[in-house]
Amino acid sequence: MPITRQITLASRPIGLPTDENFAMKEVEVGEVATGQVGVELVHISVDPYLRGRMNDGKSYVPPFAIGGPILSGGIARVVSSRAEGFAEGDLLMGMFDWQESQVVNPANFRKLDSTGISPTAYLGILGMPGLTAYAGLFYVAEAKSGETIFVSGAAGAVGSAVGQMAKVKGLTVIGSAGGEAKVARLKELGFDKALDYRAGDIKGQLLDAAPNGIDIYFDNVGGDHLIAALEAANDFARFALCGSISEYNLTERSQGAWNLFRAVQRRIRLQGFIVSDFSDRSRGFYEEVVPWIKEGKLKYDETVVHGFENTPSAFLGLFSGSNTGKMIVAL
Amino acid sequence: MPITRQITLASRPIGLPTDENFAMKEVEVGEVATGQVGVELVHISVDPYLRGRMNDGKSYVPPFAIGGPILSGGIARVVSSRAEGFAEGDLLMGMFDWQESQVVNPANFRKLDSTGISPTAYLGILGMPGLTAYAGLFYVAEAKSGETIFVSGAAGAVGSAVGQMAKVKGLTVIGSAGGEAKVARLKELGFDKALDYRAGDIKGQLLDAAPNGIDIYFDNVGGDHLIAALEAANDFARFALCGSISEYNLTERSQGAWNLFRAVQRRIRLQGFIVSDFSDRSRGFYEEVVPWIKEGKLKYDETVVHGFENTPSAFLGLFSGSNTGKMIVAL
Repeated sequence: MPITRQITLASRPIGLPTDENFAMKEVEVGEVATGQVGVELVHISVDPYLRGRMNDGKSYVPPFAIGGPILSGGIARVVSSRAEGFAEGDLLMGMFDWQESQVVNPANFRKLDSTGISPTAYLGILGMPGLTAYAGLFYVAEAKSGETIFVSGAAGAVGSAVGQMAKVKGLTVIGSAGGEAKVARLKELGFDKALDYRAGDIKGQLLDAAPNGIDIYFDNVGGDHLIAALEAANDFARFALCGSISEYNLTERSQGAWNLFRAVQRRIRLQGFIVSDFSDRSRGFYEEVVPWIKEGKLKYDETVVHGFENTPSAFLGLFSGSNTGKMIVAL
Repeated sequence: MPITRQITLASRPIGLPTDENFAMKEVEVGEVATGQVGVELVHISVDPYLRGRMNDGKSYVPPFAIGGPILSGGIARVVSSRAEGFAEGDLLMGMFDWQESQVVNPANFRKLDSTGISPTAYLGILGMPGLTAYAGLFYVAEAKSGETIFVSGAAGAVGSAVGQMAKVKGLTVIGSAGGEAKVARLKELGFDKALDYRAGDIKGQLLDAAPNGIDIYFDNVGGDHLIAALEAANDFARFALCGSISEYNLTERSQGAWNLFRAVQRRIRLQGFIVSDFSDRSRGFYEEVVPWIKEGKLKYDETVVHGFENTPSAFLGLFSGSNTGKMIVAL
């Protein structure tokens, strides 16, 4: 049987992951049985939530096994098919092992048609990050025209979608990101205000940027950003809690939201959510968002790292902020 | 004009209030004008939220003035009336200055009729604490039969109402309180489990008491109790954030909910609320709760401190846990 390369979790990271937590090995690719297809990976999506699956412990997804492959979103090309309706050259989107060649049941994947939209968009703005943004903004936080939103980690795949979708719907948008280049990009994307958290205390910057307070907070960062948002929140503000990238690699307890009592004073609703809870509502998402993309109302940035062997470093780059927009590996 | 006694805020407390923060002075009682009544205070309600009004700063209610009277819930008896529909001997409930005799516009008060229920019940189970419990439980947390609830500060006026109302509606109820006597009282009130936070780590106790997790958390305490509830929460748990008595007197930052990321993992909704936002729904509350009291399904404890001059110490007692149930001053 043919041999292919696979990237495995070599050890559980403590704190910030390093290259040593990953290993490359060669494995055999199985036979393509009836109903299956053989595929070659074309793109791998690396996302912050994967960090949680590298820990051994209860989370909303089971942990990856030591010595086993990492599983993440991706796009693969069919190279041999024994499944009806699938032919060589078809592109499949879904969850793939980090393995160059593999045999899968195509029923578990979505076949990408030629919509005039780049396939990688389905890993970002039309994939999990886009649906995360849409669901958090409109289903969880119930954002309405005329309101003011603060989105942290706004240059990331989710954050940049949140900010632009909020602009389409008539909100005033304040975003935070790390560094001058990202802040400049947020302004290009139409954000009303962009804060550089590396340039100083985020709480002070937010209170200055939102003199009338914020009605919505979309949290990708946690930590000091959440504390700042609690200070700036108006009465009846809604917080969509999506992630806490500032805390994923902490080996000690985070500072914690010491001002959570603001939630009582200002009747704030904080709602944690996970995109998979909204997968049954993805049709409404596509119907609304695909036209926005075709009309140029939603732009999406991609940071593309080339080479299968560089997948771990692309993942690690998420935590040092080396991406603008969706981080993708191209094989 | 006649002279009466008034208790004022002498200085803003720093941390835990003391007797020195209050002063007694003599003031003149005004004339009873047309449309007004003269009253004598019969009962004063002291409540934890008053602590917030003693600070100078933005909260959901404006701060008390230095040298001015404290205003709180109370019951007064009409001693002279120039208002139609009000006669000597009528009992009025509402917000009164801490002042033995005063002149008020009765339109701002509720006249208590003889329902067979003790007038002081209208300061507790049928007053602000009772509506707080009811609104938090059913409107905010959307508690349903078969679910498990954890209520902190469960021996207080709000907490004991929460636990009993939850039992009437078919929930499994776990409460926390400080000390053996209060824990014993919770069991008498029908709580399924009662935890003594003075006897050890509340997180460990809660995880033991709720092996299948909690669906609802009613927070009166904040701090370590909120952290414990986040650890014990099931998917889609709802937290009604009502108060944080453990934090009101802190002069430094509290530890903070370092594990708030659980809200994402378990899709927890945390909702701060204030009872006054639900005052337009008090009719439904009375219709459901008055029969529960008459049928003996809801018991309410009162800790009565005698003497107007002891009002500050009754208030201070709230923070050392010297009350079981509603703390009331009888004049």
